[in-house]
Amino acid sequence: MGFALPTLGRHVLIEFYGCPSDIIENNRLIEKYMNEAADYAGATIVESVFHHFNPYGVSGAVIIAESHLTIHTWPEYGYASVDVYTCGDSVSPWKAADYLGEKLQAKKTESFEVPRGMVDKIKQYAEQDIHEVQVKPTLKGVK
Amino acid sequence: MGFALPTLGRHVLIEFYGCPSDIIENNRLIEKYMNEAADYAGATIVESVFHHFNPYGVSGAVIIAESHLTIHTWPEYGYASVDVYTCGDSVSPWKAADYLGEKLQAKKTESFEVPRGMVDKIKQYAEQDIHEVQVKPTLKGVK
Repeated sequence: MGFALPTLGRHVLIEFYGCPSDIIENNRLIEKYMNEAADYAGATIVESVFHHFNPYGVSGAVIIAESHLTIHTWPEYGYASVDVYTCGDSVSPWKAADYLGEKLQAKKTESFEVPRGMVDKIKQYAEQDIHEVQVKPTLKGVK
Repeated sequence: MGFALPTLGRHVLIEFYGCPSDIIENNRLIEKYMNEAADYAGATIVESVFHHFNPYGVSGAVIIAESHLTIHTWPEYGYASVDVYTCGDSVSPWKAADYLGEKLQAKKTESFEVPRGMVDKIKQYAEQDIHEVQVKPTLKGVK
């Protein structure tokens, strides 16, 4: 038995240890996997930005209509740090996390989920009365 | 008394409740504040991407040499969700968090810090022996 926690978003933080360095130093591959993970989770990709640092490491973000995915890698240490933040119940952050876990081939994965945007607190502190809280609307007319 | 936790990064998650909607619906203002926060914290900005959703909300990320800042806002609910992730000890994520707290004028702020990339686990699971762990080098030759 459990109960539903009314929240706008779900944020999963993942630590991938012991990843093969040839995977996590590859900027294009990491960008591909991150976009595929977003897509696999059912998210709508808005924009993707990735940078390769010299001598090591990739940093990037995928902005999705439902929030974001980010990654930072330290190939020299086999470590990749991933965040998957989704809002709404049509997308599961864990699908993206699992997808990346498979692709990054970590020897050890640690992860946990943080609820973001508690509905009770939104109602308590909002300027005006809020009767019903809905998540961010689907992507129409991104400006 | 405390002790130093050997970690690559520091990740601060912040919930801003009760923000004036005219601030957090303003895409350009939010991008400006996020970049200023990164700068104020001493971070090196690599790229900034922001989107305004129709009818409501801003989503954006600032990639910094030291990792990232992200924000998602729900102006209709007065809520803004911010992450500040920094690596190394030259930049404090809390400086950026405090700066944004002042600018977003939240009635209620909740935040906590998560250590990212535990050095002990990096050493345990790395492919090769690692004697000394250093954070990502300063920004030279971003590709």
